[in-house]
Amino acid sequence: MFTNCPSSTTSSHLIHLNRRNGAFLPRGCISQLSLRTTACGRGCTLSIRSSSFPSMIVIDGKAEARKIRDVITIDVLRMKESIGVVPVILPENSSEEDVILVQLPLPSHMDEQNIVNAVSIEKDVDGFHPLNIGRLAMRGREPLLVPRTPKGCIELLHRYNIEIIGKRAVVIGRSNIVGMPAALLLQREDATVTIIHSRTKNPEELTRQADIIISAVGEPNMVRGSWIKPGAVVIDVGIKRVEDPSAAHGYRWVGDVCYEEASKVASAITPVPGGVGPMTIAMLLSNTFTSAKRFHNF
Amino acid sequence: MFTNCPSSTTSSHLIHLNRRNGAFLPRGCISQLSLRTTACGRGCTLSIRSSSFPSMIVIDGKAEARKIRDVITIDVLRMKESIGVVPVILPENSSEEDVILVQLPLPSHMDEQNIVNAVSIEKDVDGFHPLNIGRLAMRGREPLLVPRTPKGCIELLHRYNIEIIGKRAVVIGRSNIVGMPAALLLQREDATVTIIHSRTKNPEELTRQADIIISAVGEPNMVRGSWIKPGAVVIDVGIKRVEDPSAAHGYRWVGDVCYEEASKVASAITPVPGGVGPMTIAMLLSNTFTSAKRFHNF
Repeated sequence: MFTNCPSSTTSSHLIHLNRRNGAFLPRGCISQLSLRTTACGRGCTLSIRSSSFPSMIVIDGKAEARKIRDVITIDVLRMKESIGVVPVILPENSSEEDVILVQLPLPSHMDEQNIVNAVSIEKDVDGFHPLNIGRLAMRGREPLLVPRTPKGCIELLHRYNIEIIGKRAVVIGRSNIVGMPAALLLQREDATVTIIHSRTKNPEELTRQADIIISAVGEPNMVRGSWIKPGAVVIDVGIKRVEDPSAAHGYRWVGDVCYEEASKVASAITPVPGGVGPMTIAMLLSNTFTSAKRFHNF
Repeated sequence: MFTNCPSSTTSSHLIHLNRRNGAFLPRGCISQLSLRTTACGRGCTLSIRSSSFPSMIVIDGKAEARKIRDVITIDVLRMKESIGVVPVILPENSSEEDVILVQLPLPSHMDEQNIVNAVSIEKDVDGFHPLNIGRLAMRGREPLLVPRTPKGCIELLHRYNIEIIGKRAVVIGRSNIVGMPAALLLQREDATVTIIHSRTKNPEELTRQADIIISAVGEPNMVRGSWIKPGAVVIDVGIKRVEDPSAAHGYRWVGDVCYEEASKVASAITPVPGGVGPMTIAMLLSNTFTSAKRFHNF
């Protein structure tokens, strides 16, 4: 486990972002960029010179999550006005019969197994029901709900207009809750996806081929700058508490990706914290609301 | 579409098959090989000189399928003797109530939708139920039945002792019935899997990285010799009828892989016909019997 990753890489290079061939235009960031549009249509080229602008865009999960929560808040109010129902976090004095949407952990007096077994696929707000995962994997089928963390990752790519179709994507980690569904989601969006896991022999070499990297291992600073193709987009799902006497609380949160190195190579990266984490929470709200709407035919 | 693929490749090279690093020992073929075992344990090296032995092994799906069918025949007889039940192909005069196992197409007087909707996951002999696919995708879950064609592909790899753990595998095609479940199966066996599809930009380059190639596209001779890493194992699922006035019936069956070229580069390859096809039928029998055993608690 690396907890430090000092780097000697410099960030003086020029990164060309091509709208057609894999680049992105973060919403709300356009005004901050100096656009040098060449005489072309769909293939116009943006140049971001690191001397005047950061060569790398920090994907602000916190800000995007706030926007999503704001939209959901308005929708929930509309639902309340219309049918008098709101999805709520269960208070401690609820009965098992009150449960219409399950998100673990439950209040302590409830039998988790009873309730989880009784959950229909429509109320599987975590999207972990095998029937949901099966539908996620299959072409021509739609899952009712998508696991929130991978959904949050893809949502960030969309919100930053990062092209996925035809891109090489590498997902590091194959857990049921993040890696595997993230790979299935990327596959659904026509990326060419490789899953890297503990038995993969050359993770660094394979990761370096990727245009989009989603890392969900939980191994601090595992993905170094040398693993990243210049211009790649990095979504860091990992988050671990690492002792750090110099930090305010004696620890700090560290992702799978050595941010210091990666931010000098990648074209866009999610910070830890403040990247995928807030999106995970927003996607849970989104799934819960979707589920409640379906339950009440709203 | 290529229907011919003449090649100028020669087959004079020596292929080293290393038991540990990606090689295989076909069951029943050991006596045909000249073994030069070096002084080592698990890492011993077999050398097959193409001048005296074929440098490439033809994976005989027909022979393996026959062995599987023979074992199932004995098991079915044992079931009949024990509980008086045999799984059967439905005769034309059956009623809808007779159906306990479904494999399409059904006799014409039956309502396919009625029956398919009524099929429980335990009787899904094709393994296409999303719940089965979901379980196939998830770690720690077991599908009740696995789609027969991809199951047949993996069964061939096992029967020829081809190592899968840690190998780079490429699946060409992402259909619900072959490509996607084949990728999930390889993933379950700890391969590092990439799915190549119509939106993949560099299929040739990616395929050339693979130790194991499963092609399931249905495009005759699409995978050329140049796509294959020397020593790779090639499983060709594709099968298309191609006009050929010189052939006995005016046509011949052609796979996705240009066999003439591939057989000079690969270490093992399935022929078309006689490779995956017979295994698909054997795996359907196997799934049907497994399903019947489960239904009757046998």
